[in-house]
Amino acid sequence: AERIRFILGEEDDSPAPPQLFTELDELLAVDGQEMEWKETARWIKFEEKVEQGGERWSKPHVATLSLHSLFELRTCIEKGSIMLDMEASIFVNPDDEMIVDNHIETGLLKSELKDKVTYTLLRKHRHQTKKSNLRSLADIGKTVSSASRMFTNPDNVLGFSPNPHSCRLNFLFLPLLRTQLKNKFMKKLPRDAEASNVLVGEVDFLESPFIAFVRLQQAVMLGALTEVPVPTRFLFILLGPKGKAKSYHEIGRAIATLMSDEVFHDIAYKAKDRQDLIAGIDEFLDEVIVLPPGEWDPAIRIEPPKSLPSSDKRKNMYSGGENLQMNGDTPHDGGHGGGGHGDCEELQRTGRFCGGLIKDIKRKAPFFASDFYDALNIQALSAILFIYLATVTNAITFGGLLGDATENMQGVLESFLGTAVTGAIFCLFAGQPLTILSSTGPVLVFERLLFNFSKDNGFDYLEFRLWIGLWSAFQCLILVATDASFLVKYFTRFTEEGFSSLISFIFIYDAFKKMIKLADHYPINSKFRVDYITHYSCACEQLDPVFSFFLQYNITIDWSSLTSKECLKYGGQLVGNNCEYVPDITLMSFILFFGTYTCSMALKKFKTSRYFPTTARKLISDFAIILSILIFCGIDALVGVDTPKLIVPSEFKPTSLERGWFIPPFGGNPWWVYLAAAIPALLVTILIFMDQQITAVIVNRKEHKLKKGAGYHLDLFWVAILMIVCSFMGLPWYVAATVISIAHIDSLKMETETSAPGEQPKFLGVREQRVTGFIVFILTGVSVFMAPILKFIPMPVLYGVFLYMGVASLNGVQFMDRLKLLLMPLKHQPDFIYLRHVPLRRVHLFTFLQVVCLALLWILKSTVAAIIFPVMILALVAVRKAMDYLFSQHDLSFLDDVIPEKDKKKKEDEKKKKKKK
Amino acid sequence: AERIRFILGEEDDSPAPPQLFTELDELLAVDGQEMEWKETARWIKFEEKVEQGGERWSKPHVATLSLHSLFELRTCIEKGSIMLDMEASIFVNPDDEMIVDNHIETGLLKSELKDKVTYTLLRKHRHQTKKSNLRSLADIGKTVSSASRMFTNPDNVLGFSPNPHSCRLNFLFLPLLRTQLKNKFMKKLPRDAEASNVLVGEVDFLESPFIAFVRLQQAVMLGALTEVPVPTRFLFILLGPKGKAKSYHEIGRAIATLMSDEVFHDIAYKAKDRQDLIAGIDEFLDEVIVLPPGEWDPAIRIEPPKSLPSSDKRKNMYSGGENLQMNGDTPHDGGHGGGGHGDCEELQRTGRFCGGLIKDIKRKAPFFASDFYDALNIQALSAILFIYLATVTNAITFGGLLGDATENMQGVLESFLGTAVTGAIFCLFAGQPLTILSSTGPVLVFERLLFNFSKDNGFDYLEFRLWIGLWSAFQCLILVATDASFLVKYFTRFTEEGFSSLISFIFIYDAFKKMIKLADHYPINSKFRVDYITHYSCACEQLDPVFSFFLQYNITIDWSSLTSKECLKYGGQLVGNNCEYVPDITLMSFILFFGTYTCSMALKKFKTSRYFPTTARKLISDFAIILSILIFCGIDALVGVDTPKLIVPSEFKPTSLERGWFIPPFGGNPWWVYLAAAIPALLVTILIFMDQQITAVIVNRKEHKLKKGAGYHLDLFWVAILMIVCSFMGLPWYVAATVISIAHIDSLKMETETSAPGEQPKFLGVREQRVTGFIVFILTGVSVFMAPILKFIPMPVLYGVFLYMGVASLNGVQFMDRLKLLLMPLKHQPDFIYLRHVPLRRVHLFTFLQVVCLALLWILKSTVAAIIFPVMILALVAVRKAMDYLFSQHDLSFLDDVIPEKDKKKKEDEKKKKKKK
Repeated sequence: AERIRFILGEEDDSPAPPQLFTELDELLAVDGQEMEWKETARWIKFEEKVEQGGERWSKPHVATLSLHSLFELRTCIEKGSIMLDMEASIFVNPDDEMIVDNHIETGLLKSELKDKVTYTLLRKHRHQTKKSNLRSLADIGKTVSSASRMFTNPDNVLGFSPNPHSCRLNFLFLPLLRTQLKNKFMKKLPRDAEASNVLVGEVDFLESPFIAFVRLQQAVMLGALTEVPVPTRFLFILLGPKGKAKSYHEIGRAIATLMSDEVFHDIAYKAKDRQDLIAGIDEFLDEVIVLPPGEWDPAIRIEPPKSLPSSDKRKNMYSGGENLQMNGDTPHDGGHGGGGHGDCEELQRTGRFCGGLIKDIKRKAPFFASDFYDALNIQALSAILFIYLATVTNAITFGGLLGDATENMQGVLESFLGTAVTGAIFCLFAGQPLTILSSTGPVLVFERLLFNFSKDNGFDYLEFRLWIGLWSAFQCLILVATDASFLVKYFTRFTEEGFSSLISFIFIYDAFKKMIKLADHYPINSKFRVDYITHYSCACEQLDPVFSFFLQYNITIDWSSLTSKECLKYGGQLVGNNCEYVPDITLMSFILFFGTYTCSMALKKFKTSRYFPTTARKLISDFAIILSILIFCGIDALVGVDTPKLIVPSEFKPTSLERGWFIPPFGGNPWWVYLAAAIPALLVTILIFMDQQITAVIVNRKEHKLKKGAGYHLDLFWVAILMIVCSFMGLPWYVAATVISIAHIDSLKMETETSAPGEQPKFLGVREQRVTGFIVFILTGVSVFMAPILKFIPMPVLYGVFLYMGVASLNGVQFMDRLKLLLMPLKHQPDFIYLRHVPLRRVHLFTFLQVVCLALLWILKSTVAAIIFPVMILALVAVRKAMDYLFSQHDLSFLDDVIPEKDKKKKEDEKKKKKKK
Repeated sequence: AERIRFILGEEDDSPAPPQLFTELDELLAVDGQEMEWKETARWIKFEEKVEQGGERWSKPHVATLSLHSLFELRTCIEKGSIMLDMEASIFVNPDDEMIVDNHIETGLLKSELKDKVTYTLLRKHRHQTKKSNLRSLADIGKTVSSASRMFTNPDNVLGFSPNPHSCRLNFLFLPLLRTQLKNKFMKKLPRDAEASNVLVGEVDFLESPFIAFVRLQQAVMLGALTEVPVPTRFLFILLGPKGKAKSYHEIGRAIATLMSDEVFHDIAYKAKDRQDLIAGIDEFLDEVIVLPPGEWDPAIRIEPPKSLPSSDKRKNMYSGGENLQMNGDTPHDGGHGGGGHGDCEELQRTGRFCGGLIKDIKRKAPFFASDFYDALNIQALSAILFIYLATVTNAITFGGLLGDATENMQGVLESFLGTAVTGAIFCLFAGQPLTILSSTGPVLVFERLLFNFSKDNGFDYLEFRLWIGLWSAFQCLILVATDASFLVKYFTRFTEEGFSSLISFIFIYDAFKKMIKLADHYPINSKFRVDYITHYSCACEQLDPVFSFFLQYNITIDWSSLTSKECLKYGGQLVGNNCEYVPDITLMSFILFFGTYTCSMALKKFKTSRYFPTTARKLISDFAIILSILIFCGIDALVGVDTPKLIVPSEFKPTSLERGWFIPPFGGNPWWVYLAAAIPALLVTILIFMDQQITAVIVNRKEHKLKKGAGYHLDLFWVAILMIVCSFMGLPWYVAATVISIAHIDSLKMETETSAPGEQPKFLGVREQRVTGFIVFILTGVSVFMAPILKFIPMPVLYGVFLYMGVASLNGVQFMDRLKLLLMPLKHQPDFIYLRHVPLRRVHLFTFLQVVCLALLWILKSTVAAIIFPVMILALVAVRKAMDYLFSQHDLSFLDDVIPEKDKKKKEDEKKKKKKK
């Protein structure tokens, strides 16, 4: 180990050695003809072998070796000739030894066999890329020098000739083969990659094996030796007597695997002598993982693991000395799962006036330009379409409900306008442009109560609301100025996940509620029997003529031609046993609802299917929701049933005729109301702060790997400013919407395109930019003019999308994982890190407490007390604090984040203990 | 290796050593208290460890070791004291050495440390099963002898005392702890299992490690030492100086893994001395599978593999000498995938008259009794219900179609009666009672053609049919007598899978066709608009009174009260724009259809889900189809829409009034017709033979692991006999139905209940019995009286079941796997054995040819030529034979079975080659 440390540590400032491509060629007789070198396997990181007879590359897999072959390899390195830093380009120095000569000198090879070995090494090379034989090293050699000389002159083996004028050029300046250059595999390799060639084979003229390990001082392109046009740096040659081909094959695999090992690869580049290499092998052996033969079938190819220990860790081990342990006893490095944010820079309290806000602006400003050009990707388009539809649906739903609650003082059009204006401005200037603003449930409840209060007390609703908005915005600005957002630290995973799960449940619940409402609105005639079709009717009949309004004016009406609405309008009466029933619509709606949901789910999962190339799958998966919406709009149009469609306002004017686009601040209410508005404003402030910041915390989670930083203070600043604008224009107030924001982030996730075959794509981060959000809201604004297109989208399809969003946003939430554990028998439970360290009953207790909290919140939300809902979320923080007394900090560190200022609490704990005693 | 062979081979006739339960106990200080032995892992085959802090067992996993620990273990065995065949029960012999004494004698341990070591070894033992401390070895000791003596007398360490009267009884006749006896883990162990206890720990008083490996001559119950009440045979003790706890832990894991290795376990039982054990370790090391550290994260727990190499193979290796190879280069052992049946005993041609039939009867007779009591299982109930519904649906569908084709000369009731009678008799007496008889498509086509021909030529259809049936039965009997079924050999996987895929496709196609027909029958009014409800009507109106039939008789009819059928019957007319539309039914039907299918699929897959205990999951999965049918019948009843329901005839009489239950053989047709009937009979014979035997081949496939043997001749014999019966009674002819038979087998599959944790359940075979089939057909017979219950089942639900059956029977068909390959990019293709050995383009060519054949058959089936359909299946055999010239035998042996009599063909090939030359 010390030697390794010495070898590796030596030149720490030198650039890292280039990546190696390793190729294993074996000497095989093909179709009973002459012997040829045939490529049988290759490595970048994992092994890919040529299937016998399959004429194809296997899937990349972990190269399982036998211990025996590793020890044999060690012997080979011990006994064979090792030539390090051979100068391949300048052959003038006659001291350079030829591989074969070296053997003769060291007495390992009889000189009469020299010719034969040389001849063998120059056989044709056949690679897997093409079926036809490639022109081989030797073939090309022939074209340059004379064929006869080539095969008789033993001096030009691989060009390391002491006779520099003979055929040095053969290998150094040979034209590359077209097949090599065309090889698509090249793109899996970095530009500066080098090759190591392993040549093993059995020959009949040798009695003892001929072994050579060569490192060239400069990597050299050795013609058709390598499958891809990569210069060769290492050569390992093993020729041995007949009868042990399998053993040679295994030794070849062993050295190839070693060469693809990151640590040995470094050692091979830096080794000074044979002993260094042997030390490298020993080190490799020491770290090797052993599977007992009775518990594993060596015929199984092991798929590359999802994550690998970094090679740095292994290299550091030699300095540090701590041993890796088998079977997952890795030391606990926090276990936060990325949720912890207690110590992140954005939430440090500055203590200065507006300190946080200024820091936020300073942090985000440098990224402002990149926030625009980072959006140049097809994925952004899909995200825009998806989020646009979600936003429009949300705007319509909330607009409708708001109109209902405020007697159209604020309606669908206000909702559209407000969403568009606030969203666009927020996305352009806020600290976290991935957040999507929207109306939220608590705001709606507040508006309803406020309107009723104003009506009962004779206040001017819009003016009262304006003052509340102004006060609340003022309070928010104070919170910004005093860096109050640092309190977000206390929102741990428990609070976050509780809140976001609750919002998701509400989404799911609402989707079903709307479907049931729809079914009530279009009742099915379950008594309908096909045969009795003649018995069902519904006709419009005139009421008693005396009371008829039209008779008075002597207008004659053809009653039978009236529609049901007209009939009732003109005072008619619908008579018949079929009047209250509507055929087909409900059933079709349910088909569309479940269909859209299932289809979205299936298409989203399509990314991990085996079919079609990766790009196609990724495209389908990215556009999953849009595709499902289109498919089910198509099905709806095809069946032609009159399902309820999306209705977008088509004219730009306030919903109510009693109001304009500007609310005058004075005149409607007595003067003291302007001051008293500060009290309800306090409630609004808490509501806005909680809603906004919890969503911001979720968006800014560590697991999203955001690189441009958060901006809690800046976000809140803009929410406050926009609140003033909305209050003056009589538009609803907007705040960050959890579910849509998560959907926005999910649709913008980036992954690496795998480099080495077998390596898993890594989650790289999110496309952080301002364009998608901005365009979404601009589109929302112009939707008013897109009514003719949007009116083809049936509502049940959109409800299906809501259901999808609700379910999808529950994905990966630890709370849900823990809920599922309740249904699983012990032995089927997944290998979560917290299950390894926290007793199951503690986990269940934690889950149970969380469920109780959410159930209470749900009940609260459904009653009039809904207005104190945001305050109750604050209560979640308190509950979490109380848990410190119920659970150990060790358990909590796995199940949740640790609340900051542990020290304080520890002191408190100690105090309490003392008191008890 | 030779030594191993010697150790293992020595007493080959002695019984195999019992299974070992290995427990690893470590010396740990719990909660800052005194040191205790704590169980940290256990092995039966795979490792289960106690999660740190998790207080639970991990999932069983492959015990990955470090090479280092294995070498350290080897050193331990080399240096420690090895005591083999210690007599634990008879302690009279003072030569028996105590473990500690042995150490002192050999100078490894200073005698003053003796007390301390003894004391340490007697610390409490804490097992994972319970949270409270178990009463330990020492605790129990206290109750027998005095406590003070126990801790001061170093002689009684583990009871191997040279002083036999002191405390021998402590360990040998101690009462077992209740927790030990209650331990449910016991059921995972065979009755004669023995334990090996591994005790490792670090102590502060030792300077060099104290190591002992003990084998007792007789396994002895050592009180609370072991978690389960299993007698201990082996003990491994390692106590060492402080600071290397991790290393000790790994050594403990290494010896425990070795003890659970099947080969080393045998060696440990048979070893004569230290050298034998070391040879065992060396052998283990030699076979070990090595994962390179850079390609695998040691923290990953490897799940137990699906299949393991048998230990016999490994043991034989020592005699044979062939080395196992890494990464799946296992030699090709046929590659048939179980489909080959060319050389099975049932299909040998005897050459004697009725030789095959007699052999079939002799083969099946001994199993006749077990064919009844083997059915006693809950699974049989589920199979009966599922297959019953499939059979009834099939009988109704075919009955309806047959009635349509033959103008009700044969109808639904004949279909029911025929199915019940033939099915029940066949299941009672046939060679393969798992086969389900049914009407099949080709028979239906034949009947239709025959009926039309009879009508056109003035023949008596039923009499003509009787004679054809008699002739055909006679021809079948000749085939039986001449053992013609041996020709089945030529039905390779290609033919079988082609045929069964085609039938499955027809099932799927028919399910959709029926749904579309249903939609046509109940058209949706897509022009319906909610608001215009008053405009839709349908009324019955009188036609021109002059022509009215009723007016003549002066009967007054209330036209408006008539149903649509009555209206048309009485010469009325349906007037209105809503008459041809039916609301809701079509959409509801589609919901039921897709719902039933999806639900069946989901519930069937539920077996592999993580939720709920295994038994619950298995039950749900077994009853998947019945549950889905019930669920969707419930939904249908709940919604109450008048969907078409299953209609079962409720009276027992021939459908047509013109015929009785016996067809007189003479009188209806001229005499020469009786003879001429032999010609169409030939077609029927081919049809019956092909349909019957291909299905039989599929049912008798090797992968079903049937133990009671097939009976091709006997099957055909009964089909012929039943054909005579059916012909005389005027019932349809019956033959084996592929899809339903496969469904029958699938619903009767058995799997092992896993023994060692982590081992995969193995497919054991099928519950071969006659009861399920018999009861299914009896139920079909009495269904006529169950009409009031069955009429609640909507037809779309049953179509959904058909769709499910069609899709499910395509599962695991190699042809389908190959079809899917067409859509997969190379790198995602699964690791099929044939892909490793056959070039992909050959695989695709094979698939393509198969698709072309099936497409041709499909087209054929859809035209009038359908009658020669069975002959065309024979053509499949010819196509397959032709493939011998297109593909190499090597490729075919992987893609298909090899057609027998290869020698002949080889000779032909050689001849042809010669000719070419």
